[in-house]
Amino acid sequence: MKAEDLIMISVDDHVVEPPDMFDDHIPAKYRDSAPKIVRNPDGSDVWTFNGSIIPNIGLNAVAGRPKEEYGIEPTAFDEIRPGCYDIHERIKDMNAGGILASMNFPSFPGFSGRLFAATEDKDLALAVLRAYNDWHIDEWAGTHPGRIIPMALPVLWDAELCAAEVRRVAAKGCHSITFTENPHTLGYPSFHDEYWDPLWRAVSDENVVVSIHLGSSGKLSVTAPDAPIDVMITLQPMNICQAAADLLWSRVIKKFPDIRFALSEGGTGWIPYFLDRVDRTYDMHRLWTGQDFGGRLPSEVFREHFLTCFISDPVGVQLRHLIGLDNIAWECDYPHSDSSWPNAPEELAEVARDVPADELNKITYQNAMRWYSFDPFVGGRTPETATVGALRAEAGDHDVSIRARDKGRFEKQVGIEMGKLVQSTTA
Amino acid sequence: MKAEDLIMISVDDHVVEPPDMFDDHIPAKYRDSAPKIVRNPDGSDVWTFNGSIIPNIGLNAVAGRPKEEYGIEPTAFDEIRPGCYDIHERIKDMNAGGILASMNFPSFPGFSGRLFAATEDKDLALAVLRAYNDWHIDEWAGTHPGRIIPMALPVLWDAELCAAEVRRVAAKGCHSITFTENPHTLGYPSFHDEYWDPLWRAVSDENVVVSIHLGSSGKLSVTAPDAPIDVMITLQPMNICQAAADLLWSRVIKKFPDIRFALSEGGTGWIPYFLDRVDRTYDMHRLWTGQDFGGRLPSEVFREHFLTCFISDPVGVQLRHLIGLDNIAWECDYPHSDSSWPNAPEELAEVARDVPADELNKITYQNAMRWYSFDPFVGGRTPETATVGALRAEAGDHDVSIRARDKGRFEKQVGIEMGKLVQSTTA
Repeated sequence: MKAEDLIMISVDDHVVEPPDMFDDHIPAKYRDSAPKIVRNPDGSDVWTFNGSIIPNIGLNAVAGRPKEEYGIEPTAFDEIRPGCYDIHERIKDMNAGGILASMNFPSFPGFSGRLFAATEDKDLALAVLRAYNDWHIDEWAGTHPGRIIPMALPVLWDAELCAAEVRRVAAKGCHSITFTENPHTLGYPSFHDEYWDPLWRAVSDENVVVSIHLGSSGKLSVTAPDAPIDVMITLQPMNICQAAADLLWSRVIKKFPDIRFALSEGGTGWIPYFLDRVDRTYDMHRLWTGQDFGGRLPSEVFREHFLTCFISDPVGVQLRHLIGLDNIAWECDYPHSDSSWPNAPEELAEVARDVPADELNKITYQNAMRWYSFDPFVGGRTPETATVGALRAEAGDHDVSIRARDKGRFEKQVGIEMGKLVQSTTA
Repeated sequence: MKAEDLIMISVDDHVVEPPDMFDDHIPAKYRDSAPKIVRNPDGSDVWTFNGSIIPNIGLNAVAGRPKEEYGIEPTAFDEIRPGCYDIHERIKDMNAGGILASMNFPSFPGFSGRLFAATEDKDLALAVLRAYNDWHIDEWAGTHPGRIIPMALPVLWDAELCAAEVRRVAAKGCHSITFTENPHTLGYPSFHDEYWDPLWRAVSDENVVVSIHLGSSGKLSVTAPDAPIDVMITLQPMNICQAAADLLWSRVIKKFPDIRFALSEGGTGWIPYFLDRVDRTYDMHRLWTGQDFGGRLPSEVFREHFLTCFISDPVGVQLRHLIGLDNIAWECDYPHSDSSWPNAPEELAEVARDVPADELNKITYQNAMRWYSFDPFVGGRTPETATVGALRAEAGDHDVSIRARDKGRFEKQVGIEMGKLVQSTTA
């Protein structure tokens, strides 16, 4: 298919939360305690909450920057594209990038809301988390219906409260919850503990996908303190195979047959090998490990429960039938550094040049619609007006040019977690 | 190709060291202090050295056992196939399995000789390590020329001594040294530290391959203490991608252009994705991370320095041209639990049924010969008498039947490191 004829839904982008996000959503009682933006003497904007300071990382908002300027220094709102934090500007950027709809993972709270989980005042934490979810669903996603797939943060510190929050947001039309790759590494019971059953029951009942983003385990793929950062960047996506294996072999899949997980930003090219590996493990070892999938292979079970996605993954596209045509979605990763915005449609069209239209449509939008129970065709939007070409016509002369900024006052720093600095040494 | 026409060299098998291995090789001064086999009251045989007790793990010697009996309980020499520890019996097993030649990683010292590295008396440690290498090269590999690719243990605790040992064994015709996936996790300087330069210089000078086996980082792929063991079994091979990324982005590759590494038991199906990933990382990030491969892509550099191998990997075989036809070898993994001995040729012939003979010959034996500077065609052996069919004719009626043993006195245990128990809880 030609780039301009594609219909593209991205299942992994990011919102840089705007300073006023809590204003209309936090109860008055907690207004003074809610997270707030503070401008530092160096000119960077940071979130402050409950004694924590969380910078906005430049690398997490590089859309529209020359690659020479990629880096992990703290940045300010007036130095990043307004599309990172302003929903109206985001829609213009999506139109210019040919993207019909987008699911947005959080930034400053961490992918699974660890910042709120670390708060001792659990009433405050829950109030802030609910305010975040209400802002995300009603305001960020609600302002332009059919353009943002709503997603909620989990109550990481309490499975029962988390289940209740899932049911609450599902009633508002939200069918995606972001969760951690590994609750054990965050200090909570593992995926293998019955502790989480109320959550798994709630997401199963409410048809909510558990969206697990790379980097959400709290453990970076860092081989050594002096390893080049390229090592971590290379390894981070494939590292999500740990969550895939952990969940596939767990009792969760067997006890909750309707549960579904998304491996967000995990790539797809390694999945066929992974499926061969789980099937061989099952064949060689099940008689002593005691695994039992009731006459099916682990690879078949995987395809019932896991959605995978990719940015630009020639191997995954080539091997799409080994992954499962119904198990692959596309992602843009705006405004992070792995994104090809605004030229993602051209990149995808090239990578998928040999893929028949009916197969490519599944990958670019139909699978995302079905897995996330999301309908972008509202308010008069039709497939004809949803294509890359049609959206770019809507965008008109919206500026997508690459702009450089004044780097002088920033120093290089080393080590990131997506959305959170874990190690900052001036070099 | 038909199974019987294949010529098969395995670049990853294992030796279970025999009780008398040190007798002819340890200096008299250290005879009493050398590792010794002790029979436990439960009937299992264990190695003892310097206060450590290292069981022979059943799962590491399951060749010829029914799968129901796979497990990680300690075992005894009289319960495992003599081919595990007796070179004459090993050759018979290799003949019956159609395997021309084999490289054997160590068992009780750990893949990188950690047992010896932990010894406070470094003179004793070095004497034992050299005795081990002399036994392996002169006796285990030397008794049947052309059948065993010699391999040496490294002096893990001293890069200069390690370099000297590399030069010593190379002079004896040994062109493979086993090493760890990650020296940093073992408490030594990382791959990025100049500390190891004497070793890298020695292996480059002496044309010695640094063979890095999965599981040698000291860090298992364990997601949580209560995770099913299937999770670890699934993840362990692909986990070697951490070593591949660590080394590929390191200064080692750039400073030592002749250095070569083997990713032993790492599988191949994930490599094409990995190579796409490193190339994309280079494209998106090099301008701020400072990586420079001098006009080449990281994937091209990878193919100059890394040998991969697989047991049975349909995806890797299908994508062999994306990996590099000169970068793939085959392995049997005898006598470990992932091995298909004695039916490996039939398994490989089926997986590689669409591969042209010239390509398959590279994978099954020619790449192994070239990378390891190893010639199996000695003592009158010709390609005609080296095929699976010819070797099986030599084997005659050698018994390869699956035999059950008395399991009564063993209890189930959970958690293994290959060759070393890390966690033993009776269940």
